[in-house]
Amino acid sequence: MIINREVSKPVYLQVADYLRNNIYSEEWGKGEQIPSENQIMKSLEVSRGTVKKAVNMLVEEGLLYQIQGKGTYVTEDNISYSLGKGLLSFAESLEGQKLAYETKVITSEFRKATKEIASRLKIAVGEEYLYMKRIRFVEGEKVMLIENRINSRLCPGVEEHDFNKESLFKVMEEISGKRIGYSESRYAARVVGEKRGKELEVSPDSPVLHLEQLVYLEGGLPVEFGNVWLKANKYYLGTVLQREEM
Amino acid sequence: MIINREVSKPVYLQVADYLRNNIYSEEWGKGEQIPSENQIMKSLEVSRGTVKKAVNMLVEEGLLYQIQGKGTYVTEDNISYSLGKGLLSFAESLEGQKLAYETKVITSEFRKATKEIASRLKIAVGEEYLYMKRIRFVEGEKVMLIENRINSRLCPGVEEHDFNKESLFKVMEEISGKRIGYSESRYAARVVGEKRGKELEVSPDSPVLHLEQLVYLEGGLPVEFGNVWLKANKYYLGTVLQREEM
Repeated sequence: MIINREVSKPVYLQVADYLRNNIYSEEWGKGEQIPSENQIMKSLEVSRGTVKKAVNMLVEEGLLYQIQGKGTYVTEDNISYSLGKGLLSFAESLEGQKLAYETKVITSEFRKATKEIASRLKIAVGEEYLYMKRIRFVEGEKVMLIENRINSRLCPGVEEHDFNKESLFKVMEEISGKRIGYSESRYAARVVGEKRGKELEVSPDSPVLHLEQLVYLEGGLPVEFGNVWLKANKYYLGTVLQREEM
Repeated sequence: MIINREVSKPVYLQVADYLRNNIYSEEWGKGEQIPSENQIMKSLEVSRGTVKKAVNMLVEEGLLYQIQGKGTYVTEDNISYSLGKGLLSFAESLEGQKLAYETKVITSEFRKATKEIASRLKIAVGEEYLYMKRIRFVEGEKVMLIENRINSRLCPGVEEHDFNKESLFKVMEEISGKRIGYSESRYAARVVGEKRGKELEVSPDSPVLHLEQLVYLEGGLPVEFGNVWLKANKYYLGTVLQREEM
């Protein structure tokens, strides 16, 4: 690759593109060490400051990580959320991977349903539901922002539980007297934006994996409508798909 | 929300954040019309040009779309790739949704396996495999970039097929004489970058849903290692997850 000094695109962005493409094209495998600063400076004829800036950008994006005094490596081990094990809460999934986590409730308050929320939770427009916002830390780092909207008619008293410690799925099952049945889930890639970026401590233009999930009790009543924002440099969705008879 | 004119953050980005947050918080539901340019100008005390710039940014991100002479709406219908139907090719998934698509082969060539590719396809480092890059159009728009790495030892002559028209899964099954068995798939949110952004005709900092997939034949031999880059404003992953006995 040759750096183009004629175009208006800053040189460090061109170096970042070069690094990103080597990862995306699987030229550099997961866990592999990438060339040293000196090697990149030499081969692209750029300054150390430029290489550092480009590498930092990809560390922020989660594609690279650095080990002090050793070098820079392609990110290998993100946190998996497996889709192949039926409906698991994220807490259950983390427990399955033996990952230590903590949850912190930021907001818990009753709100009046907008048209959209009402139609999802099958309640009346203006009817109250419990809105809860939580941050989850894995090994001390903020990795997901969870927004829950709970149909409190099906779970009266749900607001009195301490969701810093208790599992939402378990509490909803206990109060409603019904098992969780299934969920309709959709995942998309999004830009995190200012507000949620601040909460996850990433820059506003960072990518996040967005889950929108409607959870039903057995029998088919919608009990919880949630949005989860997963840090892209930490989380991936993993699944094994069997080929079915066509 | 009040626009802060003291901070260095451009006003249109603040307006874009305001719009994005109304969508992310489900304040404005899918398919709903958002307030008019005039209403936004008035309520935030900003110029028409600023509103237009913010709206355009969110149209690019895929969160909003505009109907000439009618207004601006929250994006509703993306293309779904269902994870609940076992391993389907994207072509089969689009056929299931009765969506018209076209595929265009951009590159098809033999390459020598790097360490990473060799370990995935269980071939020797330096051994040749077929690399293929394709763009898929849905209703005339580029929606995904597909990179396939095919274990041509298991599928001799695969390079002679016309993958503008033929299905890769079918051809691999025919040549190898074995059925496709299963895949290991991982999905993550990524920044598209310069190179792949150009190919999908989106700006380099756009979010994409990235699928990395290793496909196995019945019996367990890895036959194809692929990367698929799905435009975030078009594609989501959909699934219904059943709660299993704990």
